[in-house]
Amino acid sequence: MAEKLILDGARVANELKEQLRTRVDALSGIGITPCLATILVGDDPASETYVRMKGNACKRLGITSRRIHLDRSISTEELINVISQLNEDPLVHGILLQHPVPHQIDERAAFEAISIHKDVDGVTALGFAQNAFGYADYPSCTPAAIMALLDYYRIPIEGKHAVVIGRSPILGKPVSLMLLNRNATVTTCHSKTTNLADMVKLADIVVAAVGKPKFIQGEWLRPGAVVLDAGYNAGNVGDVDYEACLLKASAITPVPAGVGPVTIAMLLKHTVDAAEKTAKH
Amino acid sequence: MAEKLILDGARVANELKEQLRTRVDALSGIGITPCLATILVGDDPASETYVRMKGNACKRLGITSRRIHLDRSISTEELINVISQLNEDPLVHGILLQHPVPHQIDERAAFEAISIHKDVDGVTALGFAQNAFGYADYPSCTPAAIMALLDYYRIPIEGKHAVVIGRSPILGKPVSLMLLNRNATVTTCHSKTTNLADMVKLADIVVAAVGKPKFIQGEWLRPGAVVLDAGYNAGNVGDVDYEACLLKASAITPVPAGVGPVTIAMLLKHTVDAAEKTAKH
Repeated sequence: MAEKLILDGARVANELKEQLRTRVDALSGIGITPCLATILVGDDPASETYVRMKGNACKRLGITSRRIHLDRSISTEELINVISQLNEDPLVHGILLQHPVPHQIDERAAFEAISIHKDVDGVTALGFAQNAFGYADYPSCTPAAIMALLDYYRIPIEGKHAVVIGRSPILGKPVSLMLLNRNATVTTCHSKTTNLADMVKLADIVVAAVGKPKFIQGEWLRPGAVVLDAGYNAGNVGDVDYEACLLKASAITPVPAGVGPVTIAMLLKHTVDAAEKTAKH
Repeated sequence: MAEKLILDGARVANELKEQLRTRVDALSGIGITPCLATILVGDDPASETYVRMKGNACKRLGITSRRIHLDRSISTEELINVISQLNEDPLVHGILLQHPVPHQIDERAAFEAISIHKDVDGVTALGFAQNAFGYADYPSCTPAAIMALLDYYRIPIEGKHAVVIGRSPILGKPVSLMLLNRNATVTTCHSKTTNLADMVKLADIVVAAVGKPKFIQGEWLRPGAVVLDAGYNAGNVGDVDYEACLLKASAITPVPAGVGPVTIAMLLKHTVDAAEKTAKH
């Protein structure tokens, strides 16, 4: 059996955070504390967990975490008002609106209310397009984490065939475009793809971003494929049937400790980037 | 031999223009003449021809064509000043900056200077993203033309595998995203794709947007594929080897009289759309 490479997200995240620590210290020396504002609407337990994890990660690095918890019955206008205040607050460098929001809210309108200068998760249309064109300050964090994992382990991208399963505006679409900008040939699949197993079989690199536990099957993989699992479902389970895929893959991210921790590290990095930009003004 | 469907762009364009004529007349009744400003920088003969064709198409429909021809030595700042004046001019409804511009100009910065309300070719980052998210007022005209041709001939898109060859910000990328939004599985190929013939062989729908004459070979096609040729090279030649591909395809656009005339019709449509929006304000 060929050697398996487990793409260790905890390790990549820790190295990223170590680099950030120096930068946070330098900012501290000139009186700036990076600050990430997280907005949670309602009381979805999974979302609460994500927001808490992000807040804790901030604190451990000396980044201020300003947690805003809004009632589930809030209107789009009220939410946008909160975002506007954060846009204008010079002490806030990054704004994260936790997805998903309750149904009565126009999530797209709320995302668009975030200033491009504080859009540390690349959720605005402008941020999305800048990333699609290859010059975004803050690409969406999960796609950025996937690229960081590939780069950390020096996995070649150019000329490879990447198959992305999922097409959301903050995951499937941006990671497809980032892989494309790095000269992969990219196929984007989704719920209406009729021959998903055949498509996955073509892939040198598979990105699973479906939101369905253990959805990607081991027998779908070409032997030696690289598998990145961006899923995180109830019970600490990814979108990939890990045990089965491990047998076929040459490299694979586990869940947990794969894409997830690097996503959080990217969010911290973007917040520090944003704080440094204000220092230069 | 199965019946071949020649996707008649001239016919589709003419029907679109007939619908526009009624709308232009209605606008005329309330004192509004739609106006497209075209900006040509330098004296590239092909670009001059394109701009002239667009201007003539406007005139025939009663749309004012304001042609601005700038010296090839103009700076980015000077070009942006011209665009800003057009943005502020209430008589101008659409602005088209003819690609490509001379090398000293930052084309991206010039595109971004176009007001989203007048960006009738979807060249701004915001327009690109709105299209990627499926709610653009003005998707880029060539991608929109390709979708219009598929729809006119009721060619199914959902669940089909579309292979796009090309990844430019106004053609390959947006058409990939539009096909994706219509539930095709989409593969985007380009100059670094290592096995292009194999990829094309998988396609139900092939979009050629490479800018290389007769580049797509007939033997690359799966029998029955639908072929859309967005290329337009010297000598009236597309990106597709038409005679060879005709033998394999179930449907194909010719060059000329394929995607080209529908692209121009889309530009006119977007200009009329923009004029109607000002009427409502």
